[in-house]
Amino acid sequence: MPPAMKTLEQCALGIVGLGLMGGAFAKALGRAGLGRAGVFACDTDRGALKAAEETGDIDQGFLSPEAMLPRCGLVILCVNPSTVLDFMGKWMGAFASGTLITDIAGVKGAVAAAMERCLRPDLDFIPGHPMAGSEKGGYAQAGSCDFRGKNYILTPLRRTKPENLRALKGLITRLGFGRITETTAEDHDRKVAFTSQLPHVIAAALIDCEADPSILHFGGGSFEDLTRIALLNAPMWAELFLENRHELLGRIRQFRQSLDKIENLIQGEERDGLARTLEMVRDRRSCLT
Amino acid sequence: MPPAMKTLEQCALGIVGLGLMGGAFAKALGRAGLGRAGVFACDTDRGALKAAEETGDIDQGFLSPEAMLPRCGLVILCVNPSTVLDFMGKWMGAFASGTLITDIAGVKGAVAAAMERCLRPDLDFIPGHPMAGSEKGGYAQAGSCDFRGKNYILTPLRRTKPENLRALKGLITRLGFGRITETTAEDHDRKVAFTSQLPHVIAAALIDCEADPSILHFGGGSFEDLTRIALLNAPMWAELFLENRHELLGRIRQFRQSLDKIENLIQGEERDGLARTLEMVRDRRSCLT
Repeated sequence: MPPAMKTLEQCALGIVGLGLMGGAFAKALGRAGLGRAGVFACDTDRGALKAAEETGDIDQGFLSPEAMLPRCGLVILCVNPSTVLDFMGKWMGAFASGTLITDIAGVKGAVAAAMERCLRPDLDFIPGHPMAGSEKGGYAQAGSCDFRGKNYILTPLRRTKPENLRALKGLITRLGFGRITETTAEDHDRKVAFTSQLPHVIAAALIDCEADPSILHFGGGSFEDLTRIALLNAPMWAELFLENRHELLGRIRQFRQSLDKIENLIQGEERDGLARTLEMVRDRRSCLT
Repeated sequence: MPPAMKTLEQCALGIVGLGLMGGAFAKALGRAGLGRAGVFACDTDRGALKAAEETGDIDQGFLSPEAMLPRCGLVILCVNPSTVLDFMGKWMGAFASGTLITDIAGVKGAVAAAMERCLRPDLDFIPGHPMAGSEKGGYAQAGSCDFRGKNYILTPLRRTKPENLRALKGLITRLGFGRITETTAEDHDRKVAFTSQLPHVIAAALIDCEADPSILHFGGGSFEDLTRIALLNAPMWAELFLENRHELLGRIRQFRQSLDKIENLIQGEERDGLARTLEMVRDRRSCLT
């Protein structure tokens, strides 16, 4: 049974991975007046650590987690999805007793299942997904990543202590995020396959199928909006697509059926059926908030 | 041979159809200090005409084109695509000799071909497509339609007088639009099927395939960006899809091939191939301006 976490104000905060998201968390913690007991970061990139120390985003940088982890009460893993489990396997012994750990990976099933099975009993781990990214990457771009009003998903483990969940939600709110949704890892992966991974697949397919470099001369905003996310971090998205492939492949099939339906209405020149479908679509979209 | 158009400053300007786009043109003409010789509009909606007179967007409203058209040197047809040819057929006799006419329909082939064949010899008609819409509709929403920096496509007829083309381009620039592209109606329809109609089909299909009203709790921006245009004017888009169906169906097939390709990489768990495709996509998108 892990001891209860100290209050946020008493905890030193550790960020593992000082890239775009790690840097954005460091900046947001400072803006929110959190981390007065220390904000630390570890990364293999000396330059990023030095820059973050100089700007005051962090109090101290570490090249290895070994020296940092024992000093932290809350650790945020800001690494690529496939690295989360490797990291936990390698450094599980280094965390201070009672530490609350969270991650930010865009797929939750494997991490949640592994942490249910083999997390050290005196630690707590709450898988999380801040729905706030940017097509940019790296610590230098962290300022472009805006948390304000964005969604945050948490998929607590069965063993998660309620007071830790409350503390983490309080921190997320103070960082500027909007709605926080608690759900299972399975539900997260099924829905995020639709709201995030499928749109990235679609954007990639749109760009893949037209090589004309002057095509944007004919853009009216919709093509630009649909393909902005094609400026993606290729290795990370390849990882996300594969990690969540069962849900994502199901969503692609579902999307293709709807595409076929609309194509058939156009092919058959069914003006009324097409207008009715588009009206349903408009009404349904206007109810989404 | 049509007489040359007067300069813009000398012309009274007539807008046919005072909806979202007609209203936006009226407002933009006023802001640009154009139409000092009069801005007129005709519509069957008395309320819109009265509102536009009261705000000063137009100098005078007309319920029938018959009284307005003879007084105008430039007429902008801001009606739905299928209405352009009906209107020209019915009112061709009412235009003053030398009038320059343009339209704003999102499909150009049929209008351009018909005008090549049967436009009155003393008139000029330059098919146009301002790539600036809004998911809103109606004159009351015209203020939400921003022309600044947007693309404008013109598909001049073989008989278009160069001085009229120059005058129209000057006016478009003064209204705040950015790049003006001249091309053929066929090229326009092929490219706009890709940059505008296909994105609307995709947005509609995305909304069609998920009925969960709380799905946006899992939104991180990309789904919202891809589906904002699903708030569409259903009858008008049904018309555009059907009017341009040959090009659009070709674009849907092309898109589906690219979707299949990415799906196969995911299905086959081809991490390297997937990452390479996504890198190509990112590079290609970053070159589009």
